[in-house]
Amino acid sequence: MPELRKDPIVGRWVVVNVENPYLPQDFNLTPFKWQGNQGCPFCYGNEHLTPAEIEVISPIPRTPNSSGWKVRVVPNKFPALRIEGDLNKHASGIYDVSNGVGAHEVIIDNPDHYKDMPDLDDLEVEYILKTYRSRSLDLRKDKRFKYLLIFKNVGLEAGASLEHCHSQLIALPMVPKNVAEEVKGAQHYYEYRERCIFCDMLSYEQENRGERVVLETQHFISFCPLSSRFSFEVWIMPKDHSVDYAETGDAILWDLSKIFKDTLTRLKKVLGQHPYNYIIHTSPVNTDVPFSYHWHIEIMPKLTSVAGFEWGSGFYVVQTPPETAAKLLREC
Amino acid sequence: MPELRKDPIVGRWVVVNVENPYLPQDFNLTPFKWQGNQGCPFCYGNEHLTPAEIEVISPIPRTPNSSGWKVRVVPNKFPALRIEGDLNKHASGIYDVSNGVGAHEVIIDNPDHYKDMPDLDDLEVEYILKTYRSRSLDLRKDKRFKYLLIFKNVGLEAGASLEHCHSQLIALPMVPKNVAEEVKGAQHYYEYRERCIFCDMLSYEQENRGERVVLETQHFISFCPLSSRFSFEVWIMPKDHSVDYAETGDAILWDLSKIFKDTLTRLKKVLGQHPYNYIIHTSPVNTDVPFSYHWHIEIMPKLTSVAGFEWGSGFYVVQTPPETAAKLLREC
Repeated sequence: MPELRKDPIVGRWVVVNVENPYLPQDFNLTPFKWQGNQGCPFCYGNEHLTPAEIEVISPIPRTPNSSGWKVRVVPNKFPALRIEGDLNKHASGIYDVSNGVGAHEVIIDNPDHYKDMPDLDDLEVEYILKTYRSRSLDLRKDKRFKYLLIFKNVGLEAGASLEHCHSQLIALPMVPKNVAEEVKGAQHYYEYRERCIFCDMLSYEQENRGERVVLETQHFISFCPLSSRFSFEVWIMPKDHSVDYAETGDAILWDLSKIFKDTLTRLKKVLGQHPYNYIIHTSPVNTDVPFSYHWHIEIMPKLTSVAGFEWGSGFYVVQTPPETAAKLLREC
Repeated sequence: MPELRKDPIVGRWVVVNVENPYLPQDFNLTPFKWQGNQGCPFCYGNEHLTPAEIEVISPIPRTPNSSGWKVRVVPNKFPALRIEGDLNKHASGIYDVSNGVGAHEVIIDNPDHYKDMPDLDDLEVEYILKTYRSRSLDLRKDKRFKYLLIFKNVGLEAGASLEHCHSQLIALPMVPKNVAEEVKGAQHYYEYRERCIFCDMLSYEQENRGERVVLETQHFISFCPLSSRFSFEVWIMPKDHSVDYAETGDAILWDLSKIFKDTLTRLKKVLGQHPYNYIIHTSPVNTDVPFSYHWHIEIMPKLTSVAGFEWGSGFYVVQTPPETAAKLLREC
């Protein structure tokens, strides 16, 4: 019989296929085909194809908007939200509407068109993580923004429109629903138990280390959560309680670079090239600081489509139990 | 500048591209290719390929599990949940878990492999809607079930694994998160205003009939909600306040058959063959009856992939404003 499991933070139920767990080959993934780097706006020499850069990491001196960079941040050419103007919230009948104030930046992870995180060296991964931090610190100076969402889409099925590996940052003028729910869930738990729910998840995983833990370093743990929504979902979480990703110091970020790369490398080894998203779950900015929150990264492989059952209920069907996924990722 | 709109029921924000609305041809849909009906377990003559039928609509006398039926209901061969056993909820560390008690039925909409709702006559559509009603009335007799989710997946991108048109019913031993949120949202509004929020949405759309209304019949309205999550999303809603789909009488169901078919036909005319889901949003069973709830059907075309931004925030980016979609659907 399948097992139902409830996420203790937001109360979401998932159905876990514990009887006939899918193995990687059972997912029938469409084989990935490269389109090639011709005309790619994220490759060296094509810097003029993007809007002017906002920030770069470059170990060598260079003219702005030319090659030589290691990580390059540019405004999204087709932004979901726009940076200009004051926020103008108003009513429209029973609805609330607002103009679309925000920022939408693209972080070009690496100049090499064909490299994703597993193919980079630790230092190159660290450049990306440092860029996330500095963009987050810079954008929060704009008091209109209440949330800075950093995420990555890899592969068509995960919503990537360009194959050259890149991350995105969207600055939002309100705390989005999913974040608000997570923050509230953590607050409720804290009020009741006077403990952080994420720290409790960590302890639980550490006590049952052979079950769902994938990797552990000095400062981080990566594990497949008991109530994962997706097969092979992995979370990376700092061991010490920490509210805000952007407050992570250099030494800890260096440790994160290694576990992050190692985790993604194992996913690629086990699943092959596959579509996935990752999202940095961190606290809101320019509003109350939720002390009970604990930042982490959620990596979500997209191996099946989301269908009517998921849309209608908020339940998810997980074909590979997290215990099976973690074992495969640990032992690969 | 894009426009932000907030769903008044669950508080979800959407970003609407009001500047450069996508038209149907801008979505780059993968052209649909039929695999064919060979070995299809839902076609006449292959009834032995499914588990034994639970219910059928058949105007002619027939032997069970043979051809001649108009609508046929069978247990899902690969059920997400299982009908046997008592619900056994218990703790696992900080998590709640349960055995996967439930029911998972497949409603084969029509014997013709190549026909979806727009290709059926009104009577055949009515057969389907009557089957939804009778399955819902039958399954609620089992007091373990708290929610009966009726939905349809059409096309690979919308999660359909078989191309022969079919609906599904999943009986759940708890009220799922998405439903609970909607019920709670409607209750909050009702406590504050002493009015049903869905009735208020209806009045608002009727007052601005030229904006987002697609069709109107004696008992129903179909419209593209102001805060749609998906391009060309359409809701069909009874005009009279009604909590439970299964309590709909025959005359009203006949009216629904017509507006439902007409709406789906218009979507197919405007978008071509496209992946979509629809979900019947109705009240929970065997628990408190939420008087402030108002059942309706949500039709959600899947024209783009859901990506990291949506997963991380709960925001949705809508490339075709509902006003543009409704106009195209009205005038086609």
